[in-house]
Amino acid sequence: MRAGADLAAIRERKPLVHQITNYVVMNETANATLSLGALPVMAHALEEVEEMASVAGALVLNIGTLSKHWIEAMLLAAKAAHAAGVPVVLDPVGAGATRLRTETAQKILDEAEIAIVRGNAAEVATLAGREAEIRGVESIGASDSGAELAAAAAAALKCVAAVTGRVDHVSDGERTVAIANGDALLGTVSGTGCMSTSITGCFLAVARDRPLEAAAEALVAFGVAGEDAAVGAKGPGSFHVALYDALYNLDPAALDSRAKVEG
Amino acid sequence: MRAGADLAAIRERKPLVHQITNYVVMNETANATLSLGALPVMAHALEEVEEMASVAGALVLNIGTLSKHWIEAMLLAAKAAHAAGVPVVLDPVGAGATRLRTETAQKILDEAEIAIVRGNAAEVATLAGREAEIRGVESIGASDSGAELAAAAAAALKCVAAVTGRVDHVSDGERTVAIANGDALLGTVSGTGCMSTSITGCFLAVARDRPLEAAAEALVAFGVAGEDAAVGAKGPGSFHVALYDALYNLDPAALDSRAKVEG
Amino acid sequence: MRAGADLAAIRERKPLVHQITNYVVMNETANATLSLGALPVMAHALEEVEEMASVAGALVLNIGTLSKHWIEAMLLAAKAAHAAGVPVVLDPVGAGATRLRTETAQKILDEAEIAIVRGNAAEVATLAGREAEIRGVESIGASDSGAELAAAAAAALKCVAAVTGRVDHVSDGERTVAIANGDALLGTVSGTGCMSTSITGCFLAVARDRPLEAAAEALVAFGVAGEDAAVGAKGPGSFHVALYDALYNLDPAALDSRAKVEG
Repeated sequence: MRAGADLAAIRERKPLVHQITNYVVMNETANATLSLGALPVMAHALEEVEEMASVAGALVLNIGTLSKHWIEAMLLAAKAAHAAGVPVVLDPVGAGATRLRTETAQKILDEAEIAIVRGNAAEVATLAGREAEIRGVESIGASDSGAELAAAAAAALKCVAAVTGRVDHVSDGERTVAIANGDALLGTVSGTGCMSTSITGCFLAVARDRPLEAAAEALVAFGVAGEDAAVGAKGPGSFHVALYDALYNLDPAALDSRAKVEG
Repeated sequence: MRAGADLAAIRERKPLVHQITNYVVMNETANATLSLGALPVMAHALEEVEEMASVAGALVLNIGTLSKHWIEAMLLAAKAAHAAGVPVVLDPVGAGATRLRTETAQKILDEAEIAIVRGNAAEVATLAGREAEIRGVESIGASDSGAELAAAAAAALKCVAAVTGRVDHVSDGERTVAIANGDALLGTVSGTGCMSTSITGCFLAVARDRPLEAAAEALVAFGVAGEDAAVGAKGPGSFHVALYDALYNLDPAALDSRAKVEG
Repeated sequence: MRAGADLAAIRERKPLVHQITNYVVMNETANATLSLGALPVMAHALEEVEEMASVAGALVLNIGTLSKHWIEAMLLAAKAAHAAGVPVVLDPVGAGATRLRTETAQKILDEAEIAIVRGNAAEVATLAGREAEIRGVESIGASDSGAELAAAAAAALKCVAAVTGRVDHVSDGERTVAIANGDALLGTVSGTGCMSTSITGCFLAVARDRPLEAAAEALVAFGVAGEDAAVGAKGPGSFHVALYDALYNLDPAALDSRAKVEG
């Protein structure tokens, strides 16, 4: 892990992170990306996604508010990204909650080259063919532990799996890392999962050949920012605001020493 | 009224509130729902709205940024909700401002089973066939008083009507309740009307057979949160942030004693 | 320049500012418009844009997240606005980044009557046929100075050009004004450029026959609000919140004396 060095690289290089994401969190993931130090761009038109994805540092696909044209755009963008050597992160929001979401996430995993899947336990379990319960887009429970699930999903999906929860687990099928950074208030703000996926895209843009580390580092950085934001927060509103401040003020020199990582 | 007990039930049961709403406020209504203690989910694809609506605790339809497919999705979702016993709330944003909005709200009221309509005076007056003036989505005036309008609209539309303004009025056509909670700063933040509709959905999810009370309790809870948020606010930005904190920190035990309700 | 008097007129008349804008910033531009004192409305359906645009005080078109139907809607709305004497502002977000964006901005400029184009240096340079570099929607550089670029763009596009950056430049091709208000934190929040375009629409609504002044005054007002918001801000999150408070609390009587304007 070299979270601090990779954060410094993000701020130095300002990679473009192309995001095709849901309507609920577009502003929030754009601002999280920008606060961290990368450049977000949102573009979903069939006529432009290939052009935009192929010049990006990373592509983030998030299926939180799907419709037919957006699914086509995601597949087009992912193929153009792959052809240009641009790595792709998938956030399978609500997989397990409706057939459309489950099948779309599976289709993207089948047809595109995905470097990292980042989701909650129920979403990742659904895709890995394990037991899970989801209510809307909230994980209610999964039969596996986070570590087992991340490892099983990485093996099944042939990519890095990042399962977030009270403790996060990231696995490439061989090595599994646990990250215990974060704060309970993250669960009270809509879109913090989506933000963590966008930040995963930022780290992946500067660490294309190290997806396991990029995913773990992103969750360390986001978790540490959550810890900082919780100080003095009076509830979800003030925590949410402080989260952008905290991402902006993350100190690369202190980041690795604050990482609560095992594995 | 048992606003406190129903708020406690929301936090205990965490009902899923499916929202097909406008682009402007999606994040805001999701966060208001989550801050109160329920679980929001946004889904608008024709392929998934029936599946999502039928497992929800309530369905909220908001016509703030319409287009053709979204109208179809709202009707499909409302029918699936009704078939599954899931109550539906309608927010007729901008009814009276354009024919599309007026006709769409009327079509939803005609073809779907709506439990509660929540709008401003001009929107509700338009649907009830009364005189009103609207500028964009802002009510400029209506010829009836709020209490008269709520009662007339409930009778005409055959559902509970919640008319919000400086004082809110809720009626089922027989009983009309006035709620004087709130703060003038609510009018300075875009989407607070939409948030109050989503919160109406949260209360309705735990009080399906008491739509009049659910609507009134929601406006009490939202109004009290507005009063709390106004303390120390310096303008619309800090008020908006404090509103989520206030919803999160609402005390069920104190809620009924703070209700400014008549009728 | 009579920024203070025009701000007072906005608060007095509360003009409706119809915005067809991108998904990322809809809530933010609505809240900036409302905080300043005007009334925002978002409507993009082909079935209603003409009706809404023709009763507005100004129409704002922003191409930040395009798709085919939205382009058609923008053209329809712009024509209806022109027919009704309603002035139109264009924000060519990402022109230069993809062919779709460049061509759409050019098409709108060709087919509609645009009063003011507000963009960053790379976007405006692209449309004026000058050299520039853009990464996503962020200007990386342009070969002309801001003043040269604004004047050249105004001449080429036959409308007022407002080029924002560290110092903003507004020109009608004959007179060019430089505005040095603002704060570096504006660059850390997604959508502040889009907000400045919406605020340009607010000023234009009360100064239809003075587009150069309206554009300059809007950038003064937004810049002064940015200066106020920066006081005590800890990063992008708290700055963003304070920006709405600052717009709401702008003092018309003090505005002109705080303007850092040359030309």
